[in-house]
Amino acid sequence: MSKYCFGVDVGGTTVKLGLFSTEGTLLDKWEIKTRTEEGGTLILPDIADSILAKMNEKGIDKADVAGVGVGVPGPVDKDGIIHNAVNLGWGTFSVKEALQKVIDMPVAVGNDANVAALGEMWQGGARGYQDVVLATLGTGVGGGIIVQGKILNGSIGAAGEIGHIHVEDNETDSCGCGNVGCLEQYASATGVVRLANKKLASCDTPSVLRGIEVTAKDVWDAVKAGDALAIEVADQFGWYLGRAFANIGNVVNPEIFVLGGGVSKAGNILIEYVKKYYKPYAFHASREVLFGLATLGNDAGIYGSAKMVLND
Amino acid sequence: MSKYCFGVDVGGTTVKLGLFSTEGTLLDKWEIKTRTEEGGTLILPDIADSILAKMNEKGIDKADVAGVGVGVPGPVDKDGIIHNAVNLGWGTFSVKEALQKVIDMPVAVGNDANVAALGEMWQGGARGYQDVVLATLGTGVGGGIIVQGKILNGSIGAAGEIGHIHVEDNETDSCGCGNVGCLEQYASATGVVRLANKKLASCDTPSVLRGIEVTAKDVWDAVKAGDALAIEVADQFGWYLGRAFANIGNVVNPEIFVLGGGVSKAGNILIEYVKKYYKPYAFHASREVLFGLATLGNDAGIYGSAKMVLND
Repeated sequence: MSKYCFGVDVGGTTVKLGLFSTEGTLLDKWEIKTRTEEGGTLILPDIADSILAKMNEKGIDKADVAGVGVGVPGPVDKDGIIHNAVNLGWGTFSVKEALQKVIDMPVAVGNDANVAALGEMWQGGARGYQDVVLATLGTGVGGGIIVQGKILNGSIGAAGEIGHIHVEDNETDSCGCGNVGCLEQYASATGVVRLANKKLASCDTPSVLRGIEVTAKDVWDAVKAGDALAIEVADQFGWYLGRAFANIGNVVNPEIFVLGGGVSKAGNILIEYVKKYYKPYAFHASREVLFGLATLGNDAGIYGSAKMVLND
Repeated sequence: MSKYCFGVDVGGTTVKLGLFSTEGTLLDKWEIKTRTEEGGTLILPDIADSILAKMNEKGIDKADVAGVGVGVPGPVDKDGIIHNAVNLGWGTFSVKEALQKVIDMPVAVGNDANVAALGEMWQGGARGYQDVVLATLGTGVGGGIIVQGKILNGSIGAAGEIGHIHVEDNETDSCGCGNVGCLEQYASATGVVRLANKKLASCDTPSVLRGIEVTAKDVWDAVKAGDALAIEVADQFGWYLGRAFANIGNVVNPEIFVLGGGVSKAGNILIEYVKKYYKPYAFHASREVLFGLATLGNDAGIYGSAKMVLND
């Protein structure tokens, strides 16, 4: 019976690592630099060295380790092949096989957004549930879908790309992905600021948001303070995200939607606006769903990676 | 090693039954009446009697049967509990346990639309694929989603309700479900007729559809004959279904979308109109997906039910 597992979250600048008990307690966490030079070929050996050094430091045997889970910023297909993680300098190869070779322990690999959803299910805002949708509202909108306790990867690792659900036919600006009218254009931090700036330019309503360089936090603080213009922006945010969730609900029928990422720091007030538009657009069978906030912050990735190797 | 399995598709008026080899050959099929009287309590004993009689007729032993799969018209949760199949007079109970008790063989139960998708994956239009979305375009729009060869049921059996994805903000008429702007209002047989009648009323364009009681088949026949007004209707149909598929693609990332139901008899021309609007709305990672037509017709349910018991 294994006692430990490792969770690794590979980002473009740092790699986060966590040592967990198999029950889900984070025992230690640390970071190393992501060395993207030389086509990213140093990244996996660096991770292996760091984990083996930690095991040495703690006196942990390989026999006591269930394995190493790794979340990576790119699509991972069902065979563990990553396809073009450009931030890391990586092309297409099996991260699972490559890391296993250097570390000689079981390895599981997943997309970072999907892995974060698994982390929130295991020990975060969706603890106790098995069918979960996580929306990570940061600079962009990421997503992860958990079905019966496991990550839904999709045929080529592109499931859960909920930021690019089309929600606005009348949009003229392009999303970063090249499409027009994507959820990310309205529900990300950038999107909320964009909605606020458009609203400010379109009317003369007095607002605490006038004359400042607006951030998403400013908008939600203003909503909490009762600012009428900010409340209109929150309502637009809720209309976009609530309808997108209703459509996701009709496809995968989760038990709970969890909001994570920087925007979610605004707290439960987000959920009020999302719920307002979820209910009228959801099919009756999916209407009674729960909404919650992510609780693991930047650690969701290491939690989810560790859980992934336990799921295998 | 089992040689046979049974697939059962319970409808409101008839129950379809099929005897299959475990390799997927339909060896015999037949129907019995659905006796909905007495709260539907006769339905499962009737099915058991009919299967046991067929085994007797063919000289098949229970030891040679993998089990009996049953598709039912209502939501089935992950524990095999059906919730209010009103067409059958059923409330909430475990169909799996109830049928197992009378037939003394393994039983698997699923929602009929989801089961049909599994059938098309096993021996129909999605044969050879493992990640499939089936859209059944009939009187309404049903759907079924297959992930890695298995049905995606959702937390309370409401996954795959793609007919109720919201696709039109400017709709004023209500869908049968009570919401407004559901895919079913545009992509079902009824929906295509509705689009055609609206188009006919809105302009004076000459059309073979004028002066007749339009059916969905009339519309697609007219499209094939080059009728300009019918082509505009087909374009609207494609716009709604293509965008809905793009959003589904961003959530579950299938290998193939399959079109079934009465409307799909129009053939590959439907796919042209759907593809036209799928591509610009799909996220780039999900853009290269396949489209196909269902091939099993009304037998999809018995195929899928039989496969479901083999999956267990």
